[in-house]
Amino acid sequence: MIITLTTDFGARDGFVGAMKGVIARLTPEARVVDVAHDIPRHDIAHGAWVLATAAGDFPSGTIHVAVVDPGVGSARLEVIVAAGGQLFVGPDNGLFQHVAAWGVEGTWAITSPAFRLPDAAPTFHGRDVFAPAAAALARGLPPEAAGPATCLAGALAWPPAVAGGLRGHIVHIDVYGNLISDLRLPSGLAPSARVVLGTHVLPISRTYADVPAGAALAYVGSAGTLELALRDGDAAAAWRVRRGAWIEVQGG
Amino acid sequence: MIITLTTDFGARDGFVGAMKGVIARLTPEARVVDVAHDIPRHDIAHGAWVLATAAGDFPSGTIHVAVVDPGVGSARLEVIVAAGGQLFVGPDNGLFQHVAAWGVEGTWAITSPAFRLPDAAPTFHGRDVFAPAAAALARGLPPEAAGPATCLAGALAWPPAVAGGLRGHIVHIDVYGNLISDLRLPSGLAPSARVVLGTHVLPISRTYADVPAGAALAYVGSAGTLELALRDGDAAAAWRVRRGAWIEVQGG
Amino acid sequence: MIITLTTDFGARDGFVGAMKGVIARLTPEARVVDVAHDIPRHDIAHGAWVLATAAGDFPSGTIHVAVVDPGVGSARLEVIVAAGGQLFVGPDNGLFQHVAAWGVEGTWAITSPAFRLPDAAPTFHGRDVFAPAAAALARGLPPEAAGPATCLAGALAWPPAVAGGLRGHIVHIDVYGNLISDLRLPSGLAPSARVVLGTHVLPISRTYADVPAGAALAYVGSAGTLELALRDGDAAAAWRVRRGAWIEVQGG
Repeated sequence: MIITLTTDFGARDGFVGAMKGVIARLTPEARVVDVAHDIPRHDIAHGAWVLATAAGDFPSGTIHVAVVDPGVGSARLEVIVAAGGQLFVGPDNGLFQHVAAWGVEGTWAITSPAFRLPDAAPTFHGRDVFAPAAAALARGLPPEAAGPATCLAGALAWPPAVAGGLRGHIVHIDVYGNLISDLRLPSGLAPSARVVLGTHVLPISRTYADVPAGAALAYVGSAGTLELALRDGDAAAAWRVRRGAWIEVQGG
Repeated sequence: MIITLTTDFGARDGFVGAMKGVIARLTPEARVVDVAHDIPRHDIAHGAWVLATAAGDFPSGTIHVAVVDPGVGSARLEVIVAAGGQLFVGPDNGLFQHVAAWGVEGTWAITSPAFRLPDAAPTFHGRDVFAPAAAALARGLPPEAAGPATCLAGALAWPPAVAGGLRGHIVHIDVYGNLISDLRLPSGLAPSARVVLGTHVLPISRTYADVPAGAALAYVGSAGTLELALRDGDAAAAWRVRRGAWIEVQGG
Repeated sequence: MIITLTTDFGARDGFVGAMKGVIARLTPEARVVDVAHDIPRHDIAHGAWVLATAAGDFPSGTIHVAVVDPGVGSARLEVIVAAGGQLFVGPDNGLFQHVAAWGVEGTWAITSPAFRLPDAAPTFHGRDVFAPAAAALARGLPPEAAGPATCLAGALAWPPAVAGGLRGHIVHIDVYGNLISDLRLPSGLAPSARVVLGTHVLPISRTYADVPAGAALAYVGSAGTLELALRDGDAAAAWRVRRGAWIEVQGG
């Protein structure tokens, strides 16, 4: 059984190691896989996108723990979410909005002592709630045993793009400065179609190598959604674009 | 058998990979777990705290390799330390001061050829001494076979807090800028007790959510010791506090 | 079977996680080992050195995936390289120049559908070509089955040092700012020999501890080649040296 970890804990503290220790103690046979630990601090929207772009490639039934949790110890629930054939464990604060779009099969609050350490520290649910909950799932306990069924209350600042629509927004800026949207290209688009982001109007290319170094391009990225980039450059920095900016497809 | 790795090697060089390669070659069945590789360069005190906050959560008998080693190739010994039911491998330079507080069961110098690669490079003991020593332990060799019994000579700049005392000092600043001390709250403290750090005097809260965003709080952190933080802020930067600062509990 | 990963994807995006997911799906029994993911963005020469300093320590037959790929989607081939008893998977853009010096036993283009995902995204060959190719090798398919035999066309900006020569160049600057060359010390060198880099002329030391803190030294590093460093300092920053600078051994 695989347990993946996605956090904003970085690699200069003992937080990630403590989570791995708890998992190794509670379920020695589980295999722990690091997805990403340098999610920008407290950036839930960033973590949500990273989780969605990595989790879908794992075998079905994989358990994904995600911890970007500025509200640790507050009223937000700790939850297990079943979506797209996978299981997700973490705080209900919007972190699961993108994977929920795959189709939520169930959401449960984590309240059972079998899914938590006794005397959980109110500042470190990664170690004391989410790691033990993942270990319980890896040992074969069903998510229903974690606690009462609930629904996802957490949400990101931007609603999901409407399927089949022509407008979306930039939801993620990757380490290269590429601008990644949540807009999937409608099928049957005319070759004259253009992608519009502010004053930038671009045809749809296939890959970076289709344009000269330094030039801008729009293309369908590896997540299946429209992206904008500067070849060998940093579009987000050059254009001063932030998440939440609208993009549109015109003339299709 | 689990071997964990804690280093200041970062993730932009081949050092960590080389250590993992040696372990895979010498003991294919061992499972290697990354704890943290972005310990600030040569910062022994930082590495010592990270090691102590992660190692205790692992199953007993886990082998922890720690390499923050500005004195590599100098007179400091390479050692194996048994403490708290776990085994630690690394340089005797203070890196094991916090885990030694769990109770040292034995310390041995690593001199036997069964625990070192032949012709160890004097600049990379992580690969040529500590990884092979961990592999030897994982293969079942007892730590006594590594070399002569010794004691821990390395020490950090600050002595450990006195158990049951009311003064301690800031021993670690985590990635969020939280100020972490080595002071455990005495039991039976009056509700009027205050935590004092310089000009900051704070009551003891339970978690971040107990105060408004931006406000300061003191609380017992996930390591079981007193911490100070700014909710959703960076206390170390805002207050210009460094490790070694004294904190005190008053009015208890 | 071990599959190692070396990339410039960092730890703040889902790219590495997606590769691990594909490998887990295609070959659950393979063990994935992170070598380094903070290779500076698009820095092929950096990645090439890191790969060479880590890969050689792994058991023979290990599969090493390396992705530093500014030209993804362009005409450069995707290849499998057999060298030094190990297998390498990645783009043919110079990334394999250092490991090729161990002796190339074969190079094959990755064209077979058994080694690629269908509809590979033209911007993410790490997930859609290199991870599946590594999984195919881990499942026991021979590299010849990947596609036609080819040769390595990619090259770094500097040619490899001539074996037995007295001149080389700085090929890597590590996280400590140490200057690492590709020059191996000829045997039988006189004790009066000096290492020359620009205006710096240094005798050959054994390790950092041989000189006072802050002093410069030259020594044979853990890769077996000449290095220059400032003890407890950053030689690259202090001397403003970049990769490609010549070094020379004189008076030997």
